[in-house]
Amino acid sequence: MTHAERMQQDREQVERWLRQCFAGREPHGDIYDAMEYSLLAGGKRLRPILLLETCRMCGGDAEAVLPFACAVEMLHTYSLIHDDLPCMDNDDLRRGRPTNHKVYGEATAVLAGDGLLTACFETMLEAQVDLPAERIVAAAGCLARAAGARGMVGGQVLDMAGEGHALALAEVEELQQLKTGALISAAAEMGCILAGGSEEQRAAVRRYAQKLGLAFQIQDDILDVEGDETLMGKPLGSDQENEKTTFVTLKGVETCRELVAKLTQEAMEALSAFPDPSFLCWLAESLVGRKN
Amino acid sequence: MTHAERMQQDREQVERWLRQCFAGREPHGDIYDAMEYSLLAGGKRLRPILLLETCRMCGGDAEAVLPFACAVEMLHTYSLIHDDLPCMDNDDLRRGRPTNHKVYGEATAVLAGDGLLTACFETMLEAQVDLPAERIVAAAGCLARAAGARGMVGGQVLDMAGEGHALALAEVEELQQLKTGALISAAAEMGCILAGGSEEQRAAVRRYAQKLGLAFQIQDDILDVEGDETLMGKPLGSDQENEKTTFVTLKGVETCRELVAKLTQEAMEALSAFPDPSFLCWLAESLVGRKN
Repeated sequence: MTHAERMQQDREQVERWLRQCFAGREPHGDIYDAMEYSLLAGGKRLRPILLLETCRMCGGDAEAVLPFACAVEMLHTYSLIHDDLPCMDNDDLRRGRPTNHKVYGEATAVLAGDGLLTACFETMLEAQVDLPAERIVAAAGCLARAAGARGMVGGQVLDMAGEGHALALAEVEELQQLKTGALISAAAEMGCILAGGSEEQRAAVRRYAQKLGLAFQIQDDILDVEGDETLMGKPLGSDQENEKTTFVTLKGVETCRELVAKLTQEAMEALSAFPDPSFLCWLAESLVGRKN
Repeated sequence: MTHAERMQQDREQVERWLRQCFAGREPHGDIYDAMEYSLLAGGKRLRPILLLETCRMCGGDAEAVLPFACAVEMLHTYSLIHDDLPCMDNDDLRRGRPTNHKVYGEATAVLAGDGLLTACFETMLEAQVDLPAERIVAAAGCLARAAGARGMVGGQVLDMAGEGHALALAEVEELQQLKTGALISAAAEMGCILAGGSEEQRAAVRRYAQKLGLAFQIQDDILDVEGDETLMGKPLGSDQENEKTTFVTLKGVETCRELVAKLTQEAMEALSAFPDPSFLCWLAESLVGRKN
């Protein structure tokens, strides 16, 4: 199996699990429709794939941790729904489709986000898996810390506050480390935690994910300037329109491209002590050339 | 110590813990201010007190589970912030003060709610407590289930959908069981879980809390009609204004009063197998005569 086929297999497993996770639930209005509308809207599933693969790399059973991988995607999806709200980024399109609040209205969109954030923890804590409870507590705690006001929520606060202001490079770095980096790092670290990895392994995986997360974000900024709207599924140039300072506005596209290459290299080097890091190295490299 | 003094002591412990829990955190804009604004706005602290006291009644160490009690209050507070939003109930006042979005704006209010919901799980999962990890997973899972789309979030969906429509008694009961009952039950059950209570004890505590939660909600409906605005800290008559069907609109004040008395009696009876349920019986009775 090639790495590309393996990634496809991981992704299909995640899709299958997500498609069935709310099946048969009592309707309560259209809340589950709204949650599934965004949860099943495609997407790269980068975070769950990272979790599954760091788990494998640390000798764990990826099948067993699938609910945790999908829980991270629920959390990521909630953040997209709330970020798109009229009072936040006020976006109409996401992955080529109208945003959640455009379809279900603002109130349901807020609640769909709340529902997914809560379902994320319910999924992890009620998972019928044969794993020591200590690992479940540590993995879910790692995610909660990364997602909260010291992590992703804090990043969104800085992002809102930064609109229309010029930010310094260090500020953009902190903002992105919180807003997207924290969750990517947590996903990677959780796989290691659930596999029973050592402290050294956790630190190495964190280092890998931090480099990868930053490269991923810079690539996003590049794509917002020179990507393909059809492939991206949303109008480009939104950073400029919202007067956001990005890596590209600070450094220019060429320097950013070099930075992405350098960070990708460093991400791969962080895994050098593992016996078989080849998939995760390939994954890092494959993100450099991505078009969406 | 009288029961009233004991309740006061529980409440002060909760207040102290909540006041220090975000101390020293990096600011990230005004997100922590916004979270604390609502978290420290007073309130009865009914849910944390229930958790502490069911833990005691089941032979557990209430001191050790204080972070869990406070986590439930964080979750309750997030739900109030989001319920008050313009796209939801659009309330300007809460506990005698402007609502969160009136002070911090809508975007920060959404994020403060998200931050508190996440902090709730972070608090439970990262608590430095000497408790078996299995109990932490079970207690946090119990709360997640009660808070999500099958519980509190689902109740808010039904509440929004029910505005302007006449609901049948069974519908109002289901709505309230989800919207307020589920969280009150979870708080009570968590205390029992954390104390290592048996399945029978958990079932008895759940029965107690379900009766108490329903009585609490009916009393709320009565107070919305004939309470004192100063004591309530918000304008009354809001149910009528929002065309909400309540127990009072369906049954009238007198029948509701009888119902509250009957449910309170049943709540107390549910605890008959415990050696010392006197505080929780007193608590149930004390809520009947409450003015806010």
